[in-house]
This record gives sequence, structure tokens and C-alpha cells, in this order.
Amino acid sequence: MKKILMIPGPVEYDGDVLASMSIPTISHTSREFIEILQDALRNVKLIFGAPEDSLPYIISGSGTLAMEISVANFLKRDSKVLVVNTGYFGDRFAELISRFTKNIDVLKPGLGLAVDPEDVRDAASKKDYDLITVTHVDTSTGVRNDIKTIASALKDKNSLLVVDGVCSVGGESFDMKWGVDIAFTSSQKALGAPPGLAIGVVGKRGLERMERVDPLTYYSDLRKWLPVFKSALEGRASYFGTPNVNLIRALSVSLNSIKKEGMEKRIRRHEIVGDAIRSALNTIGLEMIPKSSYANTVSAVYLPKNVELQKFLSQAEENGVVLAGGLIEGISSKYFRIGHMGSVGPVEVLATISAVENSLKNNGARIEAGSGIAAAQQALQKLS
Amino acid sequence: MKKILMIPGPVEYDGDVLASMSIPTISHTSREFIEILQDALRNVKLIFGAPEDSLPYIISGSGTLAMEISVANFLKRDSKVLVVNTGYFGDRFAELISRFTKNIDVLKPGLGLAVDPEDVRDAASKKDYDLITVTHVDTSTGVRNDIKTIASALKDKNSLLVVDGVCSVGGESFDMKWGVDIAFTSSQKALGAPPGLAIGVVGKRGLERMERVDPLTYYSDLRKWLPVFKSALEGRASYFGTPNVNLIRALSVSLNSIKKEGMEKRIRRHEIVGDAIRSALNTIGLEMIPKSSYANTVSAVYLPKNVELQKFLSQAEENGVVLAGGLIEGISSKYFRIGHMGSVGPVEVLATISAVENSLKNNGARIEAGSGIAAAQQALQKLS
Amino acid sequence: MKKILMIPGPVEYDGDVLASMSIPTISHTSREFIEILQDALRNVKLIFGAPEDSLPYIISGSGTLAMEISVANFLKRDSKVLVVNTGYFGDRFAELISRFTKNIDVLKPGLGLAVDPEDVRDAASKKDYDLITVTHVDTSTGVRNDIKTIASALKDKNSLLVVDGVCSVGGESFDMKWGVDIAFTSSQKALGAPPGLAIGVVGKRGLERMERVDPLTYYSDLRKWLPVFKSALEGRASYFGTPNVNLIRALSVSLNSIKKEGMEKRIRRHEIVGDAIRSALNTIGLEMIPKSSYANTVSAVYLPKNVELQKFLSQAEENGVVLAGGLIEGISSKYFRIGHMGSVGPVEVLATISAVENSLKNNGARIEAGSGIAAAQQALQKLS
Amino acid sequence: MKKILMIPGPVEYDGDVLASMSIPTISHTSREFIEILQDALRNVKLIFGAPEDSLPYIISGSGTLAMEISVANFLKRDSKVLVVNTGYFGDRFAELISRFTKNIDVLKPGLGLAVDPEDVRDAASKKDYDLITVTHVDTSTGVRNDIKTIASALKDKNSLLVVDGVCSVGGESFDMKWGVDIAFTSSQKALGAPPGLAIGVVGKRGLERMERVDPLTYYSDLRKWLPVFKSALEGRASYFGTPNVNLIRALSVSLNSIKKEGMEKRIRRHEIVGDAIRSALNTIGLEMIPKSSYANTVSAVYLPKNVELQKFLSQAEENGVVLAGGLIEGISSKYFRIGHMGSVGPVEVLATISAVENSLKNNGARIEAGSGIAAAQQALQKLS
Repeated sequence: MKKILMIPGPVEYDGDVLASMSIPTISHTSREFIEILQDALRNVKLIFGAPEDSLPYIISGSGTLAMEISVANFLKRDSKVLVVNTGYFGDRFAELISRFTKNIDVLKPGLGLAVDPEDVRDAASKKDYDLITVTHVDTSTGVRNDIKTIASALKDKNSLLVVDGVCSVGGESFDMKWGVDIAFTSSQKALGAPPGLAIGVVGKRGLERMERVDPLTYYSDLRKWLPVFKSALEGRASYFGTPNVNLIRALSVSLNSIKKEGMEKRIRRHEIVGDAIRSALNTIGLEMIPKSSYANTVSAVYLPKNVELQKFLSQAEENGVVLAGGLIEGISSKYFRIGHMGSVGPVEVLATISAVENSLKNNGARIEAGSGIAAAQQALQKLS
Repeated sequence: MKKILMIPGPVEYDGDVLASMSIPTISHTSREFIEILQDALRNVKLIFGAPEDSLPYIISGSGTLAMEISVANFLKRDSKVLVVNTGYFGDRFAELISRFTKNIDVLKPGLGLAVDPEDVRDAASKKDYDLITVTHVDTSTGVRNDIKTIASALKDKNSLLVVDGVCSVGGESFDMKWGVDIAFTSSQKALGAPPGLAIGVVGKRGLERMERVDPLTYYSDLRKWLPVFKSALEGRASYFGTPNVNLIRALSVSLNSIKKEGMEKRIRRHEIVGDAIRSALNTIGLEMIPKSSYANTVSAVYLPKNVELQKFLSQAEENGVVLAGGLIEGISSKYFRIGHMGSVGPVEVLATISAVENSLKNNGARIEAGSGIAAAQQALQKLS
Repeated sequence: MKKILMIPGPVEYDGDVLASMSIPTISHTSREFIEILQDALRNVKLIFGAPEDSLPYIISGSGTLAMEISVANFLKRDSKVLVVNTGYFGDRFAELISRFTKNIDVLKPGLGLAVDPEDVRDAASKKDYDLITVTHVDTSTGVRNDIKTIASALKDKNSLLVVDGVCSVGGESFDMKWGVDIAFTSSQKALGAPPGLAIGVVGKRGLERMERVDPLTYYSDLRKWLPVFKSALEGRASYFGTPNVNLIRALSVSLNSIKKEGMEKRIRRHEIVGDAIRSALNTIGLEMIPKSSYANTVSAVYLPKNVELQKFLSQAEENGVVLAGGLIEGISSKYFRIGHMGSVGPVEVLATISAVENSLKNNGARIEAGSGIAAAQQALQKLS
Repeated sequence: MKKILMIPGPVEYDGDVLASMSIPTISHTSREFIEILQDALRNVKLIFGAPEDSLPYIISGSGTLAMEISVANFLKRDSKVLVVNTGYFGDRFAELISRFTKNIDVLKPGLGLAVDPEDVRDAASKKDYDLITVTHVDTSTGVRNDIKTIASALKDKNSLLVVDGVCSVGGESFDMKWGVDIAFTSSQKALGAPPGLAIGVVGKRGLERMERVDPLTYYSDLRKWLPVFKSALEGRASYFGTPNVNLIRALSVSLNSIKKEGMEKRIRRHEIVGDAIRSALNTIGLEMIPKSSYANTVSAVYLPKNVELQKFLSQAEENGVVLAGGLIEGISSKYFRIGHMGSVGPVEVLATISAVENSLKNNGARIEAGSGIAAAQQALQKLS
């Protein structure tokens, strides 16, 4: 019996992406590999809406490496940072940054709330932050911040705007040209390739800031890595660390299929899918963690009282759908999460809602079976 | 957007079965390959319920090759054959047999009906048939014949009972020890491996009959092939034609996973899945081709009047589910077919029913959305 | 420790061909598959040098199925056939044909000799053969017949010229427009895809002959299959038996890489490789079975007296090279065979010659170590 | 034409390792994945000769991440470090460590020399180093240090002995129980899996030291990671960053095949292969960078004067063998490197030597063709 992976990363990957993983590893300095890497880097820039004068990277590591890269290269010991925290990965951002500077202010809207862009502007007006970090979509809560408005509100500031796009890029509307200086994601979410790659882009202002910073770290030192990717963009091989050849090939296959689908159509598909899932959960009578700013890519949903998380998850899995538990301390066993990104469509949505309905029912929740499905079906009509 | 393959073969295959296809081809006479082949042959015997003194085969070809093998080796020019015809593959059986003998009687219950075992016995009492062929489940109609009772009804006859198990073995209860002399299937259906292998077993009476027959064909001449498989069962390499090394490896992976699941549990799963699909279709108000003897593995369903097949199928595909049209001449555009075999479970069932509901609705059929899903959900409860 | 497969099929396949095998199976009637099949069929025609008005086929089965197809569709019970026999597969051709007609004449040059085209013409002048079959390269002996001259010698005859190209097409110069009516091969040799596909082309005169023949066989009945491939060439789906979807995809990958290399360059590479191997074997002092007409694709080589085949082969395998034993009755343990087709190049040639040298030495043969390698190296210079 | 990858990582991987990469990604917290991870961790311990009370890790990243991990977690700002530098990766070690402390002494034997263990002991007697780092085999020079004797010489010291085993573990005799506190490698070399994983083990003394250190880095902070791997060893899921699921599965396949071969036999094979390559190069008349302490896994070889590196490499590649250039500043274009690890055997050795011979000859070097091959053949005899 097949199971589908509906956690917020890794997700279900396309068959040709997976198959490409098994092509024999080639030399990381060969012409063939440089072309694959060049192609992947170009598509990364495209998908991030990266300006011409920015530089992308693709480095072996998880999303947390990309997070470290995005601050370690831009902070001095006395730098001032504002962290917008809308969940677990906001906590992580603050904790990680505290390794590099202790001057950290945190803007933390209540659980389930996106940050008010005005609040970010206010804070930035009171203190001259070197860096302002925002999690676009926090994987732990499914809350989506409004990056476009935040970027616009910060246009006249010197602060670098760093966006954690791990749970958004490829599934949410996103454009560095809104005024984002540094952005990152990882391979395994909306970019549709297996986990193992930290991916990001540094814009012009970020590149300038780097010149005045001596990073304390080494593996995440972009001065080591960026020349390699600059070379690759120009079609030449260069070396710092051995790249994940097979996974970069798989990423390249996935990015090309994203390009083929078209970003607008892809984001719209994620939007409809997100709507369909929320509509279904709402009809079933479940409450979501986000109060309004819902992500396209992940849904965090409170369990009805008396339904035990582990039992709920394992029952859903018996229905063929692998879901995730919570990540927010204190309530991590009170909610579950659905990842809906990548090549997700009606098959995954309907199987998931059905598994949720079934599992709730079998765990004693009073729900009207099929009502969620009907709502999802209705919402999915917009796909055609 | 992912699509799932819900046609009656090929179907969705397990990830490890597919991945094993890309292991580099090894010599067909190597120890390693002989062990893989030996293992696959043993598991074929197990799954067919084959008696100890029978011989299995796995030959490059489609199910039609297995059909030819199952008659060409047992018929003389004057042999008498009774063909039980419950659909397209019954027609094919008769047409194929007509190459070898003209003494063919056909027992053809009305469309949607399984044969009455008594009728088979009666026919066999009136004429001394050399061969009686029955399609266990006809892929074109989803009608399932009662092999066990038929075999029992023929116990005292000299006729060889040949069963086309293409759409049944691995998904329907089946046991050669009921009294089946010759049986066959192909890789791509309920055995869970990609298409390309004709698979079958010849029991003791069949092996004896072979000694008195000179087949007119060559590629399907078992006297050429059986020694190869006999050798392999004994752990020795032997050659007639180059085997499909990669696909036999994949089949072996799949057969081992079947063995691990356990035949009883597997058949029960197919039964529940079949019930769930029928229950849903019934609730939606669709009529099925079978009047009573429904297959676990495939459902043939009339479209509501005014719903056009091609539009229905392409709408279902936009919902991520690939279905098949009809195969029975005259009504082939009036019904559709769902294949539900292999590793099929709730994910596939619910996505399918939802796609059917949506597509019907969008094609103007009046159906109560979600009702089918609810019925399927209900029926699937039995899986746990 | 890796082993390379240097038997005359299966051979070493490219990594992307193998990886493509694991892409999930798609519907055999889907647009995507029809395009893959169409592409493969077009490339088959290209590689066979097939005239515009010919029809190609790709059917699940081994090379022997292609052989059956190539005669069963063109012979009546009283047809007269001339079989040119230069090895094991010449024997098989005669045996296979004897299922369809008893009027068979065999032209069998001595072991190791190619047929003299004049002898074929003489025979054809004396009797009005319906079919003349020639094995281009007999896998058992490595003898290559001169198809071009034979075809030319038969230009004014009514006989259909059938060529077994199993061990040649893709590795030897071959062009149906020389005057070949029917030709075939299988996937696993010089076409570079795993075993499992019978592949061939029927020219105009063959298609006309088919109209006057009722084949006795069914699975190999081209009247059933050709409409399917004609449809595919025109971009439409059609059904007779379920095609080997995954393997046809892999074949398509391989055929495109053949097209990319270019037929002329590819044949030249096989020629140089064949020369290099023979030059090495000759230097080592080994005698080959062919007396002059050597194949590019396979070499059949006598073992020195006192060297035992099984020991020789297993020693070679310990050196990482899998070789094959003999196939010709009476001398099958006195010679070994090397397959050198597909993506073969210096790596395989040198590893093979070295394994041969080592194994001979370890089995007591007096050879000058390294002499073969030096000769091969010399001959391979022409590759650059 | 196939090419083999004979650079010092990535190398040629086994077909089943590559095929396993394409198995659909599963949840990183699933039972199935935890079992795979547990198995891989246990085998890592086995292959490192890790004591019972040590802890292993497998983290997405290149070998340089493992290097950072191996110092960042054990150093304070005032820590004293001795770096044994025998090549490019010794330089890297020193540079990397300089991010964490400025108290670095470097012990640098002349180019091509291994360190004298007595010199390490002397240095360690004069200063109380917190950490002593040694590169087992420096990938840039192929010089192998004698870890066993060094460890023995340091037995009574408080210094932690850190060994960079990137180019050794799995191909050289290595045992943490000799007295190594911290050791690491990466997936793509002698462990036989594609690049992308930083792999290492921390012994008891290292774990104790960690308790007194606050790492400045985050992604390489073992306090975050080790609990995850401790859990996995105990069969429980835990989370810090999303693991590279597919690659860990591939690693697990490779580690199991290493275990099956047996460490002793595997090291012996690498030794014979290294000997064969050196013997061949020596016969050809080439000088190696190491003066005596040759690695089993990589050979660094001076080009004859007048032979240009890029021409040499591209000619070798035309012969099907991908080699690497130099890495040591100042002489990087004067030598080339051969990686010979993983599943390497006679096929790769002979193809490589032949490509080297050919390429040298075609680039004007005066060498006796075939002499290298003969020497390699001779040395490879010991494999049987």
C-alpha cells in the first residue's frame, strides 16, 4: 500500500526528479556538471526574482545552513538585528543570530498572527538595524508574512532585509526585487528535490556588506563559496568543497519543470490547493493556527480536544497519508501539520482530507464524514 | 502535478520496484541473476498456489504471449476446445486458439454475467474437450468467474483447465491446487512490476500433455523454455533466449513484497478496495457492467447518458487520475474502467472517486458531490 | 569491485539509459508515451536505413521473437526458403523456419567463413525462394556476412531478403536500402538498452507479401501489431498488447544518444574497437573463429590448448571482466566470446585484453604479458 | 563511450548504491528511515573502529563541514592547536582553525613527506595542545601519515587527536581505538556513496571536552546534532535539521556492502590497487609526490617536463578515464592525481594506466608503451 508524504518537507517528488538521482556521479569540474550547475543557478535566480547583480548559491546542507549563511556573512560582533518571529524557525533564527551578536530585538506577534509591516517599520525607525530577518512562511505555524509590504516599508532603511523562504520559495509569490537583500530556501520543499541542498541568493547590498565582515564560521563563509558559483554562472569550474553532484542534477530537473509550468501558474496552483485544504478543514470544523495570513504551502491545524496526536497521525498513515505533528513548544502535541507543496494537486489534497476525516472519526471526533472532501472538491474546481 | 495511474494495467508501482529497474544489467548466466530468477520463480509458484510438480515460466512478452503459450503447447490440429468468454479477452482467447484448431465451442454468458459452473460442467459432459479456457477476471468487463467451483465441477474430466489470470493473480483468491492445469498472468497488473513479462505455471497434467504435442510456434514453445526455468529452480544457468534481466529483478522485488504482505492479507485488501470503489460508484448512481460477480481488481462502469467518454477521461486526468475507456466493441465509448490492483489503498481509491465525481459533475451529470467519497470512506474502514 | 559486462549481450548500458528505467510507468495510451514510442520508431527506421514506405515495430520479447516475426508473417506451408547459416543463430533460423515450411535449403560455409555472395546468387538462380535469410553477424562465431553485396546480388530476384541484425544493427554498417526487405534486432546489443524488446522493420515488398499470408502464430502476427506502430508514427494511440513502457523509454534515450553520436562515427568507433581487440588477440597469439570476415561487435576466440574454459572465464571475472563461453556445439568449451558493442571504448577494451592476458597466464598459457595491451593501445589511437 | 571517474572523489559508485538514490523520499521521522539511519550509524562506528562510548554523526554537507565540526566543538578562543600539515587540506585545517583560535602551531614536513611521529610527540611535549590535527591522507599529495604510531606517541597527553580521514576511511587501515579522539570523512570517497554527507565520530574524551565549549557556529554545533544521532542509535526519531534521506539510504547500501566485503579484505584490496598503480607509474618512469608514505587511495604524480596538464587530462579523458589536476599552489599544473578508492579493481587500474600511457605518448613523452600495464598486471595478481 502506497503512502504519500504530506509533511512540510520532504514532500512527494516527481518521478523524473527521483530517477535522475541515480545517474552515475560525474566529476564536479566536468563541462557537463558545470552546465547543470549553471542551469540550476540561473533558475534559482529566476525563481527568487533575483536582480541581475545578485549571486546565488547551492551548497550541501539543510535549510539551517542557509540560515547561518544568511547571517554569518553579514554580521559583526556589535551588529544590531531585528528578528521577526512567527514560529519555531523565528526562534531558531534568533538563537542562531545570538552566536554572532547579542544585539537582537525580537518582534513577535501573537501565535498565529503575521507581523504587521507597520510594526517592522516602526521598529526600524527607532533603531538602525544592520539586519532584519523575516520568516516568509514559518513551517511550524503556517503563518505567512507579507514580505512585499514589509520590504516596501523598509525601502529607505539601511538595514538588510533577510528572508527565510524555506517554506515559501516555489510555492508562494516571492520576488527579491520587492527589496529583499538576502533570501534562502532548501531543496526539499516547494522546489521539489530531495533534501540536502541549502539554496539562496545575495543581492547587491548584501554583497557590499560582506566586504566589511569577517565571518567567524568557515563552512558557511560565502567568500569561499560565491566565487565558485560566479564561475559556474560564467561556465567555468572552480572548487571549494565537493558539491552534491547527483542532488544538484535532480534539483536542475525539478527547476526546469518549475520553469516549464511557469511561476505564475505554479503559485496559483499552490494557492488553490491551500484554499482547498483550508476550506475542507474549516468545513470539518477544525481551527487553524494562523488567524488570517495563511500559507499556500503548509497548514497547521489544531486537533479537536480528546484526540491524541500520535493516534491521529498513525491512523492517518494507515489511510496512506503521512502527516506531521506540531513543532511549537507547549502545544506541539495539540496540532498537526500538512505540507502541500511541490507537485501537489487534487490526488494529494483529497487523499489527505479523507485521511484526516477518517482518522478524526476513528479517534472519536464528531465530524460529518465527507463534508471536508466536498468542500475541497468545490475549491479545487478552480484548478481547471 | 502528479497523476496516478488507475487503468487496468500498467498500475502504480512501488518506489523500490521502480528503483531496482535501474541497477546495471548483469549477465543472464551469472550466479547473481540465477538466484534472482530462482527466487522469482519460487514466488510465482507460491502466488499461483502451484503444486510441487508444476513448472513456472517468466518470459519476455505481454500477457498475450502467455495466452499463446498456454494453448499452443497443448493443442493439436484436431483438438477440441471450450472457451468460456466473458469479455474482450475471451474473444481474444477464441481467436488465438483458432490458429491452432477449428474445433472451438464458446460458452458466452450475457454481458456482465459470470459463467455458471454448471454450464461448464454440462458442456464438458457433452464433449470431451482437450482444453477448457476460462478468463478469471476479464479486464474489459470486470466480471470474475468462479474458478474454484468450475475447477471442482471439472475434477473428473480429462480436459485441461486453462485459466487466464492476467487481471487476477495477486489480487484475487486463486489456487492452482483447486484443479487448474495451466495458468498465466503478466507482470504489470496485480503482481506489481512494469509491463514486459509473460508469467505462468504448467501443472503435471499439462506437462504430460505437452509430450504429445508439437507446437507450431517457436517463441512460445515451452519445450524450449521450460528446461531453462527448471535449471534456474535448481540453481543452474541455461539458455534459450536472453531474459529481461532488469525487469525480472524488479519482479523479484515486487514478489518479495507480496510475500511479505502475505497472500491472505493482500487478497483481503484488494477485496476491500474493490468493495469501496463499487460502494462509491453505486452511491453516485452509476451502473456497473458486471451484474454480480465483481472483480477485486478492475471495475467497468457505465457512464451516465450524455456524458462523453473522452471528455470524462480528460477531466478526470486534470484531477490527477488516469482512467481507461471501454474495450467491448459496440459499447466501448459508453463505459470506463478503473484498475485497482497492486499496492492500491485509500489514497488511490479516494483520489479516484473524487476525480470521477468531479468529472461527472463537470460533464453535466447530476450527482450528489461527496456522496461517493463518503461511501468509499465507510467501506475502507475495514482496512484497519 | 566492479565488473564490466563484455558478453555479446546484454552489455554495459549508459547511466542515463539505466536511470530512465526507473521513471514511473505511464499509461501506454497517454500522449506522453505515444510521443516516446513515435520517437523510438523513427529512430529505429533511421538506424536501420529503412525506406520511407517501410514499417517498424518494437514488441516485448527477445531477439528470437523478432526472428519468428520475420518469417512467420511471410511464409506459407509450401514456401521455399534459403537459410544462410554461419553459426548458432543460423541453426536457430533453420529450426524456427521448419515450423512453417519444410522446403528449406541451407547454405552453410565452413566454420569461420562468411558466405560468398556469389553462392547466394547461384542458389537463388536455381530455385525461386520465397525467403532468403542471412545472419549479418552470428553472435556465436563473430562471422560477418557481406549484406550489401548479397543484397546487390539478389536485386533482380523475387525472394525476400531477411536479415538477422541482432548482433549488428547499431554497431555495423547496415542499410535496408541496399535491398533488405525485412530486418530485425533486439534492444540489448548495439542499440544500448536492456534486454526485452524485439525490434525490426518490414519494407514495402514484405508488407505486400504479408497480405497473402495467414500466419499460424498469434503473438508474432504483424497484422495485429503493425497498425499499432503505424498509429504511433502518426501520433495516435492504438492497442494490441501492453507495451513495455519503461523499456521503450530507455530504448528511446539510447537511440537518441546514438543519433547524437552519429551513425557514421558510431560504426567507425565499433570498427576501431573491433580492430583493437583483434589486434591484441592476434599479438597474444590467439586464433579467432572467423577466418576473415570479422564483426565489429563480437569476437569468438579459440582458447589455447590445455586452458579450460570455465577456469579461464572465472579468472577473467576475478579481473573484473565478464566474458562468455562458446555456443557452437562440439566446440562450445574450446572458445570464448567477447561482446564489444554499445558505448564500448578504450576502458572496456583495455580492461578486457588485460583480463584475457591475466587469465591465460594464470591458466598456464605461455603468453608475453602486456603485448596484447600494447597492440590494443596502438589500434585505439585511431579513435581520437 | 563510457568514462570512468578516477579523480580523488567523487569516484565510481556501485549500481545498487546509485539505484537506491531514486527510491522515493520517505519521512525523516518514519520508522523506516530511523532504521536506515541507525544501521548507517552503526556501520560508521564499525568502519571507524569507534569505541562503544563514542557517538557518530551523518550530516548534510561536504567534508569541510566535517572538518569544521571536528574543531568548532572543541576549541575555545584561547585553545592551543597543533596542525600537522601534509598538503592542501592541512592548509585548510589551519585556516579553518584560525577562525576559532589564533594559537596555532604548524608542523609541516617537506612536500611529499609524512610527519615523523616523534616530531609530533616532541611538539606535544613542549606545549600542552588542546587539539592536535592530522590529515590521514592528504587528497592533494597522496601522502599518508602514520596515525597508529602518532596516536601511540600521544597516549599520555591531554591533547585531543583529531584525524581527517576524508581520503582514508574505508580504504586505509584505520582504528579510532588506536587513540584517535575525533575522526571524520565524507560520503563520496572510500565509503562509496555520492557526495553530500559529512560523516564522523567523537570519542569519549571529545564528548567530555564538548561540555566545556560553546561553539561559535550553529550548523556545525554538535550539541544540536548528537542528540539526534543518539536517538537514532536507540531507534527513536528526533529532529534538528532535515536529513538527506535519499543519500543516507544510498550510504547505508554502500556501508552494508563494505561490511559484507569485510574491512580487512577491503583494505587489502585498496593496498594492492595502490601498489599496482604505483608500480605502473614507476615503470613508466614517473615520479610521485610522496617520497615514501604512499596512500592506498590516491596517487599524486609529476608530469614529465613539457607535458601540459590540461592536454594530458583531456587526452586521458578521450581514452575514457577522468583524472584530476594538482591542488598544491605553485605546482598545481605540474602534477596530476588519480583517485583509486571504493569499488576500484583491475578494470579501473588497467584502463587508467593505459590512458596515462597513451596520453603521455600523445603529448610527446618518451615512454615504453605497455610497460606500465605489465607492471600493474603483475601487481594485481595478488588480488586473487
